Amino acid sequence: MRGTSSDALRELARARSVVLTTHINPDGDALGSMIALYLFLQRRGIQVQMWLDDNLPVMYSFLPHLDKIARPPITPQPVDLFVVLDAGDASRTGSSGHNYRGRSLNIDHHLSNSDFADLTFVDETAAATGVMILRMIEEADGGVSKEMATCLYTAIATDCGFFRYANTDAHTLHAAARLVGYGAEPHTISEQLQTMPLSRITALSKVLDTLEVSGCGRIASVMVPPGIASTDVEDTEGFIDYPRNIAGVEVAIMFKPSAEKETVKLSFRSRRLNVSDLARSLGGGGHARAAGCTLKGSVYEVKPRVLTRVLEALREAGL
Amino acid sequence: MRGTSSDALRELARARSVVLTTHINPDGDALGSMIALYLFLQRRGIQVQMWLDDNLPVMYSFLPHLDKIARPPITPQPVDLFVVLDAGDASRTGSSGHNYRGRSLNIDHHLSNSDFADLTFVDETAAATGVMILRMIEEADGGVSKEMATCLYTAIATDCGFFRYANTDAHTLHAAARLVGYGAEPHTISEQLQTMPLSRITALSKVLDTLEVSGCGRIASVMVPPGIASTDVEDTEGFIDYPRNIAGVEVAIMFKPSAEKETVKLSFRSRRLNVSDLARSLGGGGHARAAGCTLKGSVYEVKPRVLTRVLEALREAGL
Repeated sequence: MRGTSSDALRELARARSVVLTTHINPDGDALGSMIALYLFLQRRGIQVQMWLDDNLPVMYSFLPHLDKIARPPITPQPVDLFVVLDAGDASRTGSSGHNYRGRSLNIDHHLSNSDFADLTFVDETAAATGVMILRMIEEADGGVSKEMATCLYTAIATDCGFFRYANTDAHTLHAAARLVGYGAEPHTISEQLQTMPLSRITALSKVLDTLEVSGCGRIASVMVPPGIASTDVEDTEGFIDYPRNIAGVEVAIMFKPSAEKETVKLSFRSRRLNVSDLARSLGGGGHARAAGCTLKGSVYEVKPRVLTRVLEALREAGL
Repeated sequence: MRGTSSDALRELARARSVVLTTHINPDGDALGSMIALYLFLQRRGIQVQMWLDDNLPVMYSFLPHLDKIARPPITPQPVDLFVVLDAGDASRTGSSGHNYRGRSLNIDHHLSNSDFADLTFVDETAAATGVMILRMIEEADGGVSKEMATCLYTAIATDCGFFRYANTDAHTLHAAARLVGYGAEPHTISEQLQTMPLSRITALSKVLDTLEVSGCGRIASVMVPPGIASTDVEDTEGFIDYPRNIAGVEVAIMFKPSAEKETVKLSFRSRRLNVSDLARSLGGGGHARAAGCTLKGSVYEVKPRVLTRVLEALREAGL
């Protein structure tokens, strides 16, 4: 059943024991929303646990109460209410989603939702689940502590790219402003989030060394050298933004050859061209301005072929 | 005389002809605030000009009405009111500040102000002059057009590092939220501001190739190879943030040897150490977490000497 913020609050108020969980590969919105709701429920005297079927990314290690997050149990555990945050489907929660017995509540801001829970509270206009949790706490009693504010500011800021993405609307910024009023410190949070392992900087250096711009200046590409490609995904995330942000570049491509398999993973970013169509024609998919695919062969075979395709696509689109 | 927002508005309302100007080396706040006020005054039927004694940085070329900005005249021009925005001293305006005859109004958010104008409206708690201009327009008639909103959002977002710096408070975020309500598009503006020349990316690549981290992991340094150091300052601005953001690094240093002179320009960034003291002891200066100096000698002479000094300073500070 679909419900409102008040329905969700009523459901939470009825429960004596609550388990909170979120999606695997958790991001700032997943963790920040979960911990803020945990603190809110704990204050109301509800017995509350947090489950996570995945490891915590290092960059969020500054969030409070991470030590209260536990792995889901091996055998199903009875609980009054099982709450899934920031995920539109139970499968996204890993093993957490199987190991409870009780009613379920889903709070999420994603457009696609499988209505897997007994009660589903979705607001797809919210820039982050953190915005929804903030409103719920304000609606319930208005008491947002500094710790809650830090968690929710992290949730919101990371999900809208620090107020740079298209999902940043007036509500997002007003929510962030209220959180600063409750004690969140934007500069402290952003400083924590900007801290990165040395391996990421050395990887960036090696990737930027491979930068090539086409003669016409409209296509820029980088390659992730095989030694780096085999390490953590996190380490090269966002690197494609460097070729993407060059003045005059319409399409940026990142080639990531696999060391073991004879394949190359490709990422596309664009300013105006629909790279989703392009990626689909190569057996991949994605969004209009951010897409990808995986091709067989070495990077030396794949690259000229792809560049020709991109040039054709640009010509067809009149760009 | 010091005055309020209402005093400034009264001063503007009395004038038939107004000249607006701002500081040399203009940034987003300078340009955005000036153009927004220009549009407001123009709408009120006031004859208004914009003067700028400097070139426009390429990154702001998306702002509207840049073609209305002119160089200051050679000989002094009579004007009812001369308005200096985002600068606390007339000397910061270049030749604009000399080439008018009339009353003057200064609108600024910087702490130090020389009270050079007939009326000075300063709010040092505002994160940007753009916040002050927004409030003035809202106070006067509330009509903030989409173009004004774009200018003022750019002004505010750039002056607080896209809501990452310590000057980001609840007022800053509420102001940004209202501007989005008036039509500013955060993602369009940030995309424009992120666009950079190819030369900047290739410079970054070359600078990151020089990254060195001390054995203890607390000092990270990069060097700007001489070929790059001689080009535009803009091209290496912010590069020191890469070593600065490495986990565990307390002090980041950027060495910029001069090709012509036998000198090396040093920049320091720190997490906790007072690098202002350090820079001062080397003949330079700056802020507690961001400072710099220029030393005689080649980078090969200067570097080991400076690293030893930084290690000593860290030891003394117990870091």
